[in-house]
Amino acid sequence: MQQEGYARPIRLGMVGGGIDAFIGNVHRFAARLDGQYELVAGALSSSPDKARLSGERLGLAEDRIYADFLEMAQREVERPDGIEAVAIVTPNHMHFPVARAFLSVGIHVICDKPMTASLADARELVSLAERSKALFALTHNYTAYPLVREARQMIAEGRLGALRVVQVEYAQDWLTESIENEGQKQASWRNDPAQAGAGGCIGDIGTHAFNLLSFITGLETERLCADLSSFGPGRQLDDNVHMMLRFKGGARGMLWASQVASGNENHLAIRIYGEKGGLEWQQENPNQLWYCPFGEPRRLLTRGGAGLSSAASAVTRTPAGHPEGYLEAFASLYSDIATAIRARQLDDDSHAQGGLVPSVQSGIEGLLFIDAAVRSRGSWVSLTQD
Amino acid sequence: MQQEGYARPIRLGMVGGGIDAFIGNVHRFAARLDGQYELVAGALSSSPDKARLSGERLGLAEDRIYADFLEMAQREVERPDGIEAVAIVTPNHMHFPVARAFLSVGIHVICDKPMTASLADARELVSLAERSKALFALTHNYTAYPLVREARQMIAEGRLGALRVVQVEYAQDWLTESIENEGQKQASWRNDPAQAGAGGCIGDIGTHAFNLLSFITGLETERLCADLSSFGPGRQLDDNVHMMLRFKGGARGMLWASQVASGNENHLAIRIYGEKGGLEWQQENPNQLWYCPFGEPRRLLTRGGAGLSSAASAVTRTPAGHPEGYLEAFASLYSDIATAIRARQLDDDSHAQGGLVPSVQSGIEGLLFIDAAVRSRGSWVSLTQD
Amino acid sequence: MQQEGYARPIRLGMVGGGIDAFIGNVHRFAARLDGQYELVAGALSSSPDKARLSGERLGLAEDRIYADFLEMAQREVERPDGIEAVAIVTPNHMHFPVARAFLSVGIHVICDKPMTASLADARELVSLAERSKALFALTHNYTAYPLVREARQMIAEGRLGALRVVQVEYAQDWLTESIENEGQKQASWRNDPAQAGAGGCIGDIGTHAFNLLSFITGLETERLCADLSSFGPGRQLDDNVHMMLRFKGGARGMLWASQVASGNENHLAIRIYGEKGGLEWQQENPNQLWYCPFGEPRRLLTRGGAGLSSAASAVTRTPAGHPEGYLEAFASLYSDIATAIRARQLDDDSHAQGGLVPSVQSGIEGLLFIDAAVRSRGSWVSLTQD
Amino acid sequence: MQQEGYARPIRLGMVGGGIDAFIGNVHRFAARLDGQYELVAGALSSSPDKARLSGERLGLAEDRIYADFLEMAQREVERPDGIEAVAIVTPNHMHFPVARAFLSVGIHVICDKPMTASLADARELVSLAERSKALFALTHNYTAYPLVREARQMIAEGRLGALRVVQVEYAQDWLTESIENEGQKQASWRNDPAQAGAGGCIGDIGTHAFNLLSFITGLETERLCADLSSFGPGRQLDDNVHMMLRFKGGARGMLWASQVASGNENHLAIRIYGEKGGLEWQQENPNQLWYCPFGEPRRLLTRGGAGLSSAASAVTRTPAGHPEGYLEAFASLYSDIATAIRARQLDDDSHAQGGLVPSVQSGIEGLLFIDAAVRSRGSWVSLTQD
Repeated sequence: MQQEGYARPIRLGMVGGGIDAFIGNVHRFAARLDGQYELVAGALSSSPDKARLSGERLGLAEDRIYADFLEMAQREVERPDGIEAVAIVTPNHMHFPVARAFLSVGIHVICDKPMTASLADARELVSLAERSKALFALTHNYTAYPLVREARQMIAEGRLGALRVVQVEYAQDWLTESIENEGQKQASWRNDPAQAGAGGCIGDIGTHAFNLLSFITGLETERLCADLSSFGPGRQLDDNVHMMLRFKGGARGMLWASQVASGNENHLAIRIYGEKGGLEWQQENPNQLWYCPFGEPRRLLTRGGAGLSSAASAVTRTPAGHPEGYLEAFASLYSDIATAIRARQLDDDSHAQGGLVPSVQSGIEGLLFIDAAVRSRGSWVSLTQD
Repeated sequence: MQQEGYARPIRLGMVGGGIDAFIGNVHRFAARLDGQYELVAGALSSSPDKARLSGERLGLAEDRIYADFLEMAQREVERPDGIEAVAIVTPNHMHFPVARAFLSVGIHVICDKPMTASLADARELVSLAERSKALFALTHNYTAYPLVREARQMIAEGRLGALRVVQVEYAQDWLTESIENEGQKQASWRNDPAQAGAGGCIGDIGTHAFNLLSFITGLETERLCADLSSFGPGRQLDDNVHMMLRFKGGARGMLWASQVASGNENHLAIRIYGEKGGLEWQQENPNQLWYCPFGEPRRLLTRGGAGLSSAASAVTRTPAGHPEGYLEAFASLYSDIATAIRARQLDDDSHAQGGLVPSVQSGIEGLLFIDAAVRSRGSWVSLTQD
Repeated sequence: MQQEGYARPIRLGMVGGGIDAFIGNVHRFAARLDGQYELVAGALSSSPDKARLSGERLGLAEDRIYADFLEMAQREVERPDGIEAVAIVTPNHMHFPVARAFLSVGIHVICDKPMTASLADARELVSLAERSKALFALTHNYTAYPLVREARQMIAEGRLGALRVVQVEYAQDWLTESIENEGQKQASWRNDPAQAGAGGCIGDIGTHAFNLLSFITGLETERLCADLSSFGPGRQLDDNVHMMLRFKGGARGMLWASQVASGNENHLAIRIYGEKGGLEWQQENPNQLWYCPFGEPRRLLTRGGAGLSSAASAVTRTPAGHPEGYLEAFASLYSDIATAIRARQLDDDSHAQGGLVPSVQSGIEGLLFIDAAVRSRGSWVSLTQD
Repeated sequence: MQQEGYARPIRLGMVGGGIDAFIGNVHRFAARLDGQYELVAGALSSSPDKARLSGERLGLAEDRIYADFLEMAQREVERPDGIEAVAIVTPNHMHFPVARAFLSVGIHVICDKPMTASLADARELVSLAERSKALFALTHNYTAYPLVREARQMIAEGRLGALRVVQVEYAQDWLTESIENEGQKQASWRNDPAQAGAGGCIGDIGTHAFNLLSFITGLETERLCADLSSFGPGRQLDDNVHMMLRFKGGARGMLWASQVASGNENHLAIRIYGEKGGLEWQQENPNQLWYCPFGEPRRLLTRGGAGLSSAASAVTRTPAGHPEGYLEAFASLYSDIATAIRARQLDDDSHAQGGLVPSVQSGIEGLLFIDAAVRSRGSWVSLTQD
């Protein structure tokens, strides 16, 4: 059972996430739910006025509201009560410079995905993180749903036998019309290569789908063949991704990501089939997991319900039938990161979260994935460009 | 959009909810999520050792961990930084004495349901609350789901026309076997008339179903005819409730509550039919609401999705497709209560939450409902015993 | 596996079911699907012109198109190639005189439900059938769905343990508006006590719900308490039924039938809970059956799928995933009736269909049920009026 | 409304479909349901004993039971009461020689899919059919579901705007284990290139998916990129197909077909997204169609329900909520073929079924599709090999 914050809360800062931000809000809910963090500082906007206003609304002390993240890193590291960790919730292109600034002064980094806007930045960040005593954690939040953890555990235990086929998809419809040309802020930066990187839909949600697939199955993707489209008139980056994948060991997969699929709100779904059975899960109905042992009736596993392992119960707050959702999963990842930060503070990663916290490794894999998808142009390419 | 706690958090105490408690945990998550409350004191158990241990785990200051709620009320009201509100999460029979203690010193009360264990206590509490300057709020948490608020709004606007038929049901299965005889704590007090009151299933979950029905439809129940059963061997209180209802104005309803319905985890569901259309909602899938205008295809309304009113968006945190659940709804009620408390502190109930916060009125209706159901024995009875 | 008609088809006549009839059409599809019957004669309408036109359209020989069912019974029994069985698909009040006419000359009767329009007629028909060498079969078609048969078998085998609670409901919306006053033929006779009998919704669909409950569970209903309403303006008969039931042995139930529940097309559903597990089935999705063994994950049984017994496979035509529907179930009942007719023709009921063919016994139970529901007026009454 | 067979039934023969056959049984149900055909002759097996036994069981006259389809074609065409049409339900490799034999004597052919086992045969058959006065119809039965017809109509009317993305999938699990090596008849011939042709899963069910996509959307497939796998140990033909498609006009698609996806019985599903909205349909739940106009709540269209066009009602037998299934859709196609045959008999194709009856054109497209998929080996290929 996910426990409340009986330990002293970790002092947290935030870069990005000012008024009207979507994901900054979500990170704050996630940090607060289990009581493991206390938000005490922020560079919430690069506009000084908006930064101040946003900080005041959040009740930050005046001297810990910054307009410049570099200044924030420097000042906070000098305070005895300075932040121990920072959450980065800016557009993609700022992830790298902000992460670099905080890692270099030894402040733990909790970074939204994708890790960086370019593969080059990603490689440099891996190198930086390996040299830093601070932890780098990437918020692939969908991995922290209890039944995602359960699915991963079941596959690790061989319940499906050797895997054969993986179908993953992430469909939305909010870019059906080209609202980025009408000043919609969320859409604008996501369709600007300078801020988002080389990938549109592939970077924004395709990486989540790829990460989920990798997290649950443990499969290593050897090659992929991708067909990226831009259907929105005047759109610069892709808004629909079709992809076939080949995994080490012979399994095969398909990935579909779209932001122009009318009627889909946030339809992230995965289906996995092995020699002995199948598993099916959908993010919009996250409290249910279908388990299909071959030759037997399907069974509906439920969060908190009968027959689940500790992998699921460790991130479960309420009994079966009392649905948990997106914020709870995000909070579970934040709590896992808190556990990892505390272990790192004790110089003891042995109790760290057993691969449950996405690291720079997940980050570089995500950038290699985006890069390969953009390079592919309908041909099979290796993720590692060899 | 449900806003984070930009105001100073309300200082909160808690009575009950020590280690291993279920609902105390839930109240704390709910109080914390939106940042509107700060838990600073508690009489978390009547056992001094367990009270201390529980308080320490929650990081309460040593001098604000109490074993006696009367002492807590007295001390806290004397402190300049004393609690402004208290959450009562004890078994039913303690709701009344605890609420009385805090209301009488002017501390706002947030009380779990049913309001009291007996109708007599309930009547006295109504009288107390009416004389107190403090607010009394009852946590009928299911009313704060965004789509429950939307359903209420739609009916108030006449979208269904005059109502005809209401089918409400709340089915669980955790008392299929008589675990109360095996020391299961949650089951034990719920099946002990001295702690739970005269109703078992009818008080524990039947009241939620009845409250939800009343909240959404606005219908006044005139008479009911109930058939209560105890299927669990050796069980003292009812574990299954069948009921027919007649409402003022001619609408009719059925209510089914059960804790012995194998396969049901927390299946609270309501269907409402009027002259012009129908609505259907299930708590286990709370992000969807079926709207069935007569003679047209059904429409699936989604939390955060197209076509919703401000009634829903006011308690919505994440975009469509990013599911919210039980804790979010509970937190929304806590935030509505916070708004009501702040208005009361300003002596200005004019900005209170427009009937959205269940009060002693909901509480007494719940007790009248339980009383009538127990009295009925298969005959039609009035809720008001006239 | 439901077999095609390898035996000589049974010669079938029909009374009622002329042009524009609904249920007559359905009976003909059902008789034809498995090749067990050949329609050769008909009194398809009491209007001679319509009878002739209808018969011609169906390709009946000119001399076997009748306007008068009495004449039909007399002539057909005299022909060497006369009909062996007759299907009665008239409004309710004609079931009895038509059945009497054919039974009395030894022609097997396949009759739509309810068996008669009055309890008195029903009692007389029971007596007639008992004296006749001909078979009387009532088309409670919903009992012939493969997964309904499976549910019955599972309960008979004790898979749920002693039954406790049964929730059955049958909701439609086609009488939301009072279309019987606008000349809609199906609605008109169903709301005319002279043609439909004392029950409206209770007779039209309530009897199906009650029959389904009895068929699957084997429970004997001792008493019921019913609340009948007429919501449609100017409506003579009930259009909504709320009912509580008590069964021999201690189980309890609820039944809801409605024809004013906007958004419901033909929502017949049953949920059954026992000491060891539960079952849930819905007619609109008939190829799935939920089996909920207590303390284990739910299992989705599918028509044609893994783990089913011969009770289901005997009425299954296509493999799992190739959905069968309403007409197939109706046809399975017709084929079971064919088997029973052939056994009766051989004077050998020992191979009859093991209680699978609803008889006058089901018919009288249906009329007793309607009568009790109408008598009840909100009080508990016995079905047998003792 | 699908009408019963008021015209004289068409005299039908059958090649293949002896005892224990699956699809022969289905064709007979389909031919019988609407009363449009009368089965009078058959070469039901190439084994004389089995042919005779099968024919007798079906009640065929002794002199119209054949062991040799060539003899059957010759004799029947000479009889004054000879068959007017023949249904071919053999393994794939026999479709061509049988079709040739009957077309060449002017008997209409109703042929199971894929049309032939090789592209060369398919080309020859096209040429034969074009010279024959007889009709050739291919039983792509899934196109005759009412809501498939409705989806096609909606797209033709521009309700979705210009199409962008099509996701089609057909998943089964019955070949999860290599049962073809254990003598399972259905599996054996499907995995034998000599009988099935070059494609396994791609030919058996991939063609259905492709045909459904083409039928509903009207899109012309320009190129595809396919990744075929054989997961079953020792399996000769593909059992899983991953494919990306590019359509004329810019739309893109994905197709997944699998026979090793544990938990999937006959999961054929299609999702289509355009500039103005989306449609989603699943064969296992064929009475529902999701219509998702962009920016509005989803609407659930139901077979027989509100808001449907004549395209759907023309193949609808029962009212909404009375589910129709696989056999009804198959029967609707047979009835459409009957209408087309009668028009052809009158030398008047002007009243033929408006493209609703799959012809040699659909057949050759299916073979081009299989050929391209097998040729692709992960590269983009044109369907027409140019």
